[in-house]
Order: sequence, then structure tokens, then C-alpha cells
Amino acid sequence: MDASTPTSKPTPERIFNTMIAFQETEALKAAIELDIFTAISDSADTPGLLATKTGASERGVRILCDFLTIRGFLTKSGGKYSLTQESAIFLNRHSPACLASMVDFLASQWSRKNFGGLTEAVRKGGTANLTGDHTKPHEEVWVNFARSMAPLTTPNAEFIAGLTGAAEGKPCKVLDIAAGHGLYGITVARRNPTAQIVAVDWPAVLEVAKENARESRVAERYATRPGSAFEVALGEGYDFVLLTNIFHHFDIATCEKLMRRVHAALKRGGKAITLEFVPNEDRVTPPMAAAFSLVMLAGTDAGDAYTFAEYEKMFRNTGFAKTTLHPVPDMPQQVLVSEK
Amino acid sequence: MDASTPTSKPTPERIFNTMIAFQETEALKAAIELDIFTAISDSADTPGLLATKTGASERGVRILCDFLTIRGFLTKSGGKYSLTQESAIFLNRHSPACLASMVDFLASQWSRKNFGGLTEAVRKGGTANLTGDHTKPHEEVWVNFARSMAPLTTPNAEFIAGLTGAAEGKPCKVLDIAAGHGLYGITVARRNPTAQIVAVDWPAVLEVAKENARESRVAERYATRPGSAFEVALGEGYDFVLLTNIFHHFDIATCEKLMRRVHAALKRGGKAITLEFVPNEDRVTPPMAAAFSLVMLAGTDAGDAYTFAEYEKMFRNTGFAKTTLHPVPDMPQQVLVSEK
Repeated sequence: MDASTPTSKPTPERIFNTMIAFQETEALKAAIELDIFTAISDSADTPGLLATKTGASERGVRILCDFLTIRGFLTKSGGKYSLTQESAIFLNRHSPACLASMVDFLASQWSRKNFGGLTEAVRKGGTANLTGDHTKPHEEVWVNFARSMAPLTTPNAEFIAGLTGAAEGKPCKVLDIAAGHGLYGITVARRNPTAQIVAVDWPAVLEVAKENARESRVAERYATRPGSAFEVALGEGYDFVLLTNIFHHFDIATCEKLMRRVHAALKRGGKAITLEFVPNEDRVTPPMAAAFSLVMLAGTDAGDAYTFAEYEKMFRNTGFAKTTLHPVPDMPQQVLVSEK
Repeated sequence: MDASTPTSKPTPERIFNTMIAFQETEALKAAIELDIFTAISDSADTPGLLATKTGASERGVRILCDFLTIRGFLTKSGGKYSLTQESAIFLNRHSPACLASMVDFLASQWSRKNFGGLTEAVRKGGTANLTGDHTKPHEEVWVNFARSMAPLTTPNAEFIAGLTGAAEGKPCKVLDIAAGHGLYGITVARRNPTAQIVAVDWPAVLEVAKENARESRVAERYATRPGSAFEVALGEGYDFVLLTNIFHHFDIATCEKLMRRVHAALKRGGKAITLEFVPNEDRVTPPMAAAFSLVMLAGTDAGDAYTFAEYEKMFRNTGFAKTTLHPVPDMPQQVLVSEK
């Protein structure tokens, strides 16, 4: 039980810590909501100064910051708090790499409700929530996703832009399915000044993507097709179709239905580029990709983190003879490239 | 981000994992509710066998058990799951050391509600919940505590029984304040056949303590005084007063008020024995004791994990000239002994 004295005999420490792991999420969420990390970066480094800066109580701030120190998000010396290197980069809103907003989606009420019904989800084999059919619009969920999750996108988006040969600047037509914040297609457009992007998503979600396209000054090459990726006219003759974090929401038959539409929309020699959590055949490695399966059990009717063999078969069934797998450096997701 | 490739450059991995840490609690809770660990110990070791045994879906069980494997609660080989040594001891209901029931209190709706209001609690310096005055009865909370948290009691209770010199069997009168499941006083009674126990707690909570006293065959030496520890007549002439996990619920003035009543109830030479989370002066070590302060911020109006210096002063103010500190081996809590 005592975390300070490691021992080789079995202890209930990991079990106890897991039973209260939800406290960690709440503590980090509270610190982000009160913008504690930014305040410390602005030299408010004692409970008194932090209380003044954040409008919170000195006692509350002291206890929260002590907890953040215990968990390695801050350091404390002589009663003063400092940011760790990680917190300074990823939790301080002055930092361009800040990903604090992600807590709004990852620990959203929707996600908690999904996981709050996990026992029932295990019993029935799919979410206990009413929002489990992701072929249907749940715009408030996906607008929240689009507004919150952009920070984690950059390495994956740059990797995918690289796979499209964006740096060569050859004219190309790109379809971005379930575009969300739009940053995958937008990154291709930024890296390739002749690329034309067509984004598909629910209407309210595309408003976020269009904002981002304007901010990235690619709006004149950014068209949208609002609606269901299973029903809206996708157009044709695309060089690339981007399918980022979409297949895991569905069962295999639904994935194949979507991929058939993608095949029809691509020109001959065009490529479908899929970004996904792809566990190994054992389904328990690598940890982040494999663990994602539980998120799909909790939140969808029949989604999953599929293995490469499963994707390869799905894509072959829909006309793609060959699919190759490309790990994204330092990221938990992988890219699958399928040529028509 | 990739948990499988450690690197020295800063990564957002810890932050990401903390944002989704609540998922860990829900997964373990679901596994306990479905009694997965006991089922595996009974040789149901594949998703199919586990589904039959637990009445859950094969798909749900497969995904949950894969997640538990990733998190180190199970191992998986050739599609079959096995318990780890820790799970076999602490999560399998056939094991006498099973502490699965603790999740019912640690991750109770009440505790989640407390932490769900953490941002507001930091703002105001006390819980955002309406149940923050723990001098008042919140019987459903403490009955749940009494029914769920007994398994973690044994090492602390045996340690405290040792401090009372129970093995010598000298006749003694013991007052157990905020007795809860009653196991601290009951353990003294079991170790010392001449000890007489008087337990104080809310009426419904004492029913649990009485059940446990009967099960331990000490009921004839187990008396109860239902009501508030601040108001009920405690009696007098006690050799020992046990104060286990009680002071952290209150502000210092309230702690002193209680300790004055304890002083009056003890005979000269009698000892108050306090079990508590006692952080060091830095309030960030040792981790489990120091982190407990946040639980009190989230759930009480003004409770805290007090340092030894704070306890020593409180107890001196109420008539105890000297208090000594006794760490419980392998446990996060410590015992304070104060002689009248």
C-alpha cells in the first residue's frame, strides 16, 4: 500500500490506485479549468498568488497544487510551485504545443456516461448509451471533438501529408471523410499549394473545419459536403481519400460499405489513407492502440480497434488488392495505405 | 504518446493517460461487478467460457479482459486469460484477502459527485457537495463505507491491537469513536479476551459493526452508543480511545472539540490512539498520505490530511502533553499515541 517503499511481495497498491484513478482525471481537469499551469508560467507560484490570479481559494489551490506535485505535473520547493518540462510544453496555454483542451473531449460528460455504463456494455457487447450508432449524427459530440482534439493532430497530419507527396506540389484532389476539425486535409493543403480539399462531415462540425481552413489561409481550396459519409455524394476522381479515426466506430460490414464508396470516389491509382489504432494480433499490444478497443465498447454499438489483418481483409473485399502499414513515429496510431 | 517506446524527450503520454484515467476505474469496477477475477480463478479462462459464467457477451468480455491484461491485472497467452499474483490475492472473491468490495466506496456515486465538483471545491476551499459537514449524519455514505472498506483494515487493526498490549490480556475498557465496520475495536476484543468495547457511530452504521462483532464472537463484550461523537455521552474511565480516520473530516477547531471529549473520557494514564494519513511538512510526501488531502477538499467543508506538527499542537491544546508517531508497516497510514 505504501507507494514510497517498493517491495517485491504482492501489494494492493495498483488496485487501490486504479479504484481511485478517476480522481486523477478530475484533478487535472480542475487545474486546466482554473488555468493553474498558465498562471504558474506567469510567475504566480505560491498558493496566495495563484488564488489571486485564478480567483480560487488559497486553501483549495494549495491542496490541488500539492496533488499535482505528487502526481508529477508540478514541482514544489520552499512552498513555491514550478512547472515540469512536460507541463510547460503541454499544459501551459502560452505554449504552441498546449493540449489542455483535449480534456474537454476525453473527459467529457458524454465519455463519462459511456464509461459509467461499462458493466452493462460488457453484458450486451456494445454501449449502454443511446448514441452508439455513429452512422447517425451526434453533432454536439463531434463539434466538441473538433474543438478539443486538434492539438494531438499535428504529427499524424504531417505524416499523412508526407505520404501524399505534398512537398512535390503536384496538383491533386483530396477527399477528407469525417473531417472533424479538418486539420488532416488542411495540412495537405498547406504543404501543397495546388491541392484541392473536399471535406465531408455533419454540418455543424464542418463549420469548425471551415474556421480552421480560413485560419490556415486555404479556404479558397477547401470545399465541403455536409452530411453522412454513407449517403452524401462524395464526388469522384480523387487522388487521395483520407479516412482518419473513422472505421473504429463501426462493425466490419459498415466499414466495408464505407470503403466501397471510397473505392468508387478514387481515380485509378488513387490511394485511400487510413489513420487508426491498430493492435497486434494478440489484441493486448501495443498498449495504447489495444486499449482503444475499450473506448469503442463503451461508446459505440459495434466499433472496435481492428487488427491489420482485419483491415487488410475488409479493404480487399472492397476492391483494394494491397494495403500497407506505416507506423507514425512517436504516436500510438498507424497509417494504412490502399491503392486503387 | 507511444507507451511502448520510452524516450527521454518530453511526451504528452502522462497527461493523456491522466485525462482518461477515469476509464481505468470504470474497467476495474465493471470487472469486479461481473466478478471476472473469481470466474477466471474457477477456470473460465476464455472469452467464451467467461461469457457463459458471467452472463455477459463474449465480445464485451474479450475487450474488457484485453484491457485488464494491458493494465497488468491479467495475463493473456494463446487466447486464455490468467490472474496475476496480485489479482489472485486481492480481486478473487475466493481469497480471504480479497478487497474487491472497496470499489463500492472508493468509486461510489457520492465520491464521484464530490470529485465531479472539484473545480468549484478549489474555488471555494471546500466541497461543492451538500454533504460536507461530517459532524452531521450521512448514514448512507458511512454504511456503504462500513460494508465496503473492511478488507483494508486488518494490518492497521492488528497494529493498533498490538499498541494496546492486547496480547497480555489485561482487562481494559476501549472506546471506539466513529467505529464504522467496528473492526478496530473488534480486533482488540479478539486479541484480548478481557477487553470491553464501546462503539460510537450513527445508528445504521453501528448495525454493521454489531454484525461484525457477532461474526467475530465478541458481541457480549461489544456495547454501542448511537449518535454524534460530539454529542452522545461517551462514558468515562477508558484505558484506550480509538480515533481511526476521523480527524481528517474536520477543521482544527472541530478536531480539538472532539479531542477534549476524548480527554475527559480517558482514565489517567489512558491513551488516545489515532489512525491517520499524516503527510510530511512539505505536504507532498509520502504520496498516498499527502494525496489524501484532495479527497478531503473534494468531499468535506474543511477537512484535511494534517501534519504531525498540526496534530501534536491540536492534541496538546486539549490536554495531551505528548503525542508519539508510529508508522504502520507497509501501510500508508500512521498511528499517533497520546497519553492522558
